[in-house]
Amino acid sequence: MASGDVDAVVICTPTNTHADLIEQFARAGKAIFCEKPIDLSLERVRQCLKVVAQTGATLMIGFNRRFDPHFVAVRAAIDAGEIGKVEQVNITSRDPGLPPFEYIKVSGGIFRDMTIHDFDMARFLLGEEIVTVQAAASVLVDDKVAECDDFDTASVILTTASGRQCAISNSRRATYGYDQRIEVLGSKGMISAENHRPVSIEIANGSGFTRPPLHDFFMTRYTQAYAAEIAAFVAAINDGSAPTPSGEDGQISLTLAEAALRSVAEARVVNLSEFD
Amino acid sequence: MASGDVDAVVICTPTNTHADLIEQFARAGKAIFCEKPIDLSLERVRQCLKVVAQTGATLMIGFNRRFDPHFVAVRAAIDAGEIGKVEQVNITSRDPGLPPFEYIKVSGGIFRDMTIHDFDMARFLLGEEIVTVQAAASVLVDDKVAECDDFDTASVILTTASGRQCAISNSRRATYGYDQRIEVLGSKGMISAENHRPVSIEIANGSGFTRPPLHDFFMTRYTQAYAAEIAAFVAAINDGSAPTPSGEDGQISLTLAEAALRSVAEARVVNLSEFD
Amino acid sequence: MASGDVDAVVICTPTNTHADLIEQFARAGKAIFCEKPIDLSLERVRQCLKVVAQTGATLMIGFNRRFDPHFVAVRAAIDAGEIGKVEQVNITSRDPGLPPFEYIKVSGGIFRDMTIHDFDMARFLLGEEIVTVQAAASVLVDDKVAECDDFDTASVILTTASGRQCAISNSRRATYGYDQRIEVLGSKGMISAENHRPVSIEIANGSGFTRPPLHDFFMTRYTQAYAAEIAAFVAAINDGSAPTPSGEDGQISLTLAEAALRSVAEARVVNLSEFD
Amino acid sequence: MASGDVDAVVICTPTNTHADLIEQFARAGKAIFCEKPIDLSLERVRQCLKVVAQTGATLMIGFNRRFDPHFVAVRAAIDAGEIGKVEQVNITSRDPGLPPFEYIKVSGGIFRDMTIHDFDMARFLLGEEIVTVQAAASVLVDDKVAECDDFDTASVILTTASGRQCAISNSRRATYGYDQRIEVLGSKGMISAENHRPVSIEIANGSGFTRPPLHDFFMTRYTQAYAAEIAAFVAAINDGSAPTPSGEDGQISLTLAEAALRSVAEARVVNLSEFD
Repeated sequence: MASGDVDAVVICTPTNTHADLIEQFARAGKAIFCEKPIDLSLERVRQCLKVVAQTGATLMIGFNRRFDPHFVAVRAAIDAGEIGKVEQVNITSRDPGLPPFEYIKVSGGIFRDMTIHDFDMARFLLGEEIVTVQAAASVLVDDKVAECDDFDTASVILTTASGRQCAISNSRRATYGYDQRIEVLGSKGMISAENHRPVSIEIANGSGFTRPPLHDFFMTRYTQAYAAEIAAFVAAINDGSAPTPSGEDGQISLTLAEAALRSVAEARVVNLSEFD
Repeated sequence: MASGDVDAVVICTPTNTHADLIEQFARAGKAIFCEKPIDLSLERVRQCLKVVAQTGATLMIGFNRRFDPHFVAVRAAIDAGEIGKVEQVNITSRDPGLPPFEYIKVSGGIFRDMTIHDFDMARFLLGEEIVTVQAAASVLVDDKVAECDDFDTASVILTTASGRQCAISNSRRATYGYDQRIEVLGSKGMISAENHRPVSIEIANGSGFTRPPLHDFFMTRYTQAYAAEIAAFVAAINDGSAPTPSGEDGQISLTLAEAALRSVAEARVVNLSEFD
Repeated sequence: MASGDVDAVVICTPTNTHADLIEQFARAGKAIFCEKPIDLSLERVRQCLKVVAQTGATLMIGFNRRFDPHFVAVRAAIDAGEIGKVEQVNITSRDPGLPPFEYIKVSGGIFRDMTIHDFDMARFLLGEEIVTVQAAASVLVDDKVAECDDFDTASVILTTASGRQCAISNSRRATYGYDQRIEVLGSKGMISAENHRPVSIEIANGSGFTRPPLHDFFMTRYTQAYAAEIAAFVAAINDGSAPTPSGEDGQISLTLAEAALRSVAEARVVNLSEFD
Repeated sequence: MASGDVDAVVICTPTNTHADLIEQFARAGKAIFCEKPIDLSLERVRQCLKVVAQTGATLMIGFNRRFDPHFVAVRAAIDAGEIGKVEQVNITSRDPGLPPFEYIKVSGGIFRDMTIHDFDMARFLLGEEIVTVQAAASVLVDDKVAECDDFDTASVILTTASGRQCAISNSRRATYGYDQRIEVLGSKGMISAENHRPVSIEIANGSGFTRPPLHDFFMTRYTQAYAAEIAAFVAAINDGSAPTPSGEDGQISLTLAEAALRSVAEARVVNLSEFD
């Protein structure tokens, strides 16, 4: 931290160390890349970002999917006007299996740990800020998830001020691999990103036509995204610009997770303004 | 109605005539096939079904999609245990364009007119009765829809007692054709029905690889389903069995539409038991 | 044949009766639809067509694939100039299994019985008459096919005067169903017709993503084509036009089959002019 | 060449320098990776490989496609018996456009320059050595190609001793990108490798469903293959094994190109034994 040789740091430690490390490195004048989430407590995130703002530190939060070339192409097509005004975003995001229960217990729950990526992707694609959240969440995969006070299956609807909608479909059990798809319906058309597949082969026989399962998980699915993400961080440092996703992006996605939890608990639509 | 030559009738008249006609034909001892919905008023539906029950008439409601060979294959695979226990059903159901405003005004609104098909399909696939409904609905296609006190874009989440979920994505504007897709995630796998396409061709050039748009609407998309539906009605009459979807199926789907409307109006999760 | 009530006949009898029946019905003034081939002997076909010409009879030969809506769409796109000038046609045409050996013995062999459909399709799509034929043929499926003096696996290259090429890939054993695909490369793009599939479903699990096998054979694959074919025959009779495929079309495809056989026997490129 | 620091060399110079360089580096005791072809003259290739054999040098020829992960998966499935005995291999291999005419003049022609990759892939997949070659070749893209005494469009059929067949479809003009597909039909099923696509997106609107064009050419299409190829070369050096594709593999593919040229010139099937 005191070293003059180090301009920037990449924080990949457990979540409960993120905010402290960000503050320390910010005060040390380092540019900071930190894996999501900044913290599981929204209040702690706010404090941390205040320090970042005061020190003027460069902070980028690791929402890797914004850098996936397929999703980048989706966003580029939207920006180019190819589907007109965005109306509905549909995100299917399913893990191949449950993480270890030790991890689940400290993860903050499915919304803060898993759906948070989809919340960020929704914001990346909707073109307007989200104002309401409603969600359903269940334990269908393993009863032990309920013992951890968590869910393993969730459906979420988000809306923006003008009425744009995003629906997210989450499960912790996709036997066919890591399922990561996006569709965006606009006034002039629809753009979709199908699952990226490890190989392009298909075997046909009396049982039908079979393509192999999807990637086993994020490390192989998002290899290109991770490389592009770090490259974007370095580029931002080099040209002195503010990298995205920013600390605020991280805070908003965490707020959406909080809102989803509250929606499930209270069986109602939750307005983000409740968290101001 | 008095004719002894006629054993069965098919009612395809405007919705506001359905309940009266069903009652008259039921009393006349005819087997009745009636296009959905029985009526826009849940109370009127209840009365009508009481008459049907008292007369012992045979009544089948026209939810054509249950007879589509692709969706039938989905249901058959579920019944055969190929994907294990159903956990999430995702239905994408989008019309190519708005119906005439004269029709919208008397349609009962998007949930009673359009989503009602998806509610029935959800029930066809979930394997458990639905207990909660939550929805978001917007006017994004044409402001005149709001003047009709209706919506043109909707997202819905349904849940069953054990926590199974169904998400429905509706729009009245799919520039690429009549979009009718279903995915069912189960404990052992996923089964999906892609859009049925009019032709299997694709043209590739410097602009990319292009397949033609989807069917223009339900008449061409569901040709096979309509034929199979009527055949099922006739078969039920011939062997004296009770046809499905039944009048009760029609009533439940209409109740789900009512619940969706209430959910939007009150920004909360609505329990079906509120309608008992 | 003498009946004044009958204007037209459809001949679906065994091949060795076709030429005689065509001549008799032609002399009786009936419009004739006859399943391919007219005869296994090119000389007999020539005689028969001479009778047809002399009587002025209407004759249509049953190359059903020209009426398949998918292949019709391919041809329409070519005619509309969407892929520019045709350069290469690639036809994959594989049967699910061997026919009975009793049939093979009288079938005239794979080129006259099976590839003949692909020869007609090549002519339908190339936009120029074929001038050369070269082929390779093997027995890979069952040694008994060799005992019948036939082949079960074949690859053929056809060329036109300007150098357009067509490649045909035939097998009598496609374990995954009746494989019927076409690709046409042109100066401005490519158009392809993928296999038409019985249902649009796909099941995903730990073994991968599986779509069901193809149609079991021509009766289910070409249902629409058969209906459109007969409708075209009737329409031609009604408006007094000459139906296609004509008797000459039948003769040319049979000549291509002869040329393919000669190519295999003599290990050389065969020019169609050798058959004048 | 004299440097003791250098164990291995990679030769990517123009073709007419390959054989000389291979011989020099072989005598200098270096391990050699050389881009295909070794030389355009079969006689020169034989001399060169004699030197390699005498010096005991390690030589690997750059047929990059053998290292493409998709084609590797095809071969692995065949080796695992998933499609039974190989019967037909179909290779579609089309360049997006003509190379410069200066290059065409020294390239040795389409068979030695372009199809040679497909010949190697055919050998990689057929599971038996090729014994006959027949081909058709035309100039359809640009008349200047004829002035260079070359072709731009070709179709080839290869057969093995037991009658296995491979069909190759080549064009120097695929407006939709670099088209690289493989299908292998076996006694128990078919395995195919579809084109690898740069992005997984699709845009749908009133014009249909459009996926972007293919990779622009081999540098982007085969990035992974090139990396794996060099890694295999290094691994072979490290463990002292003989790398493949070998010099003999290079010689055989060149012989197949010679045979294809002779087939076109003499309008007949050419047996590889003619080149012994």
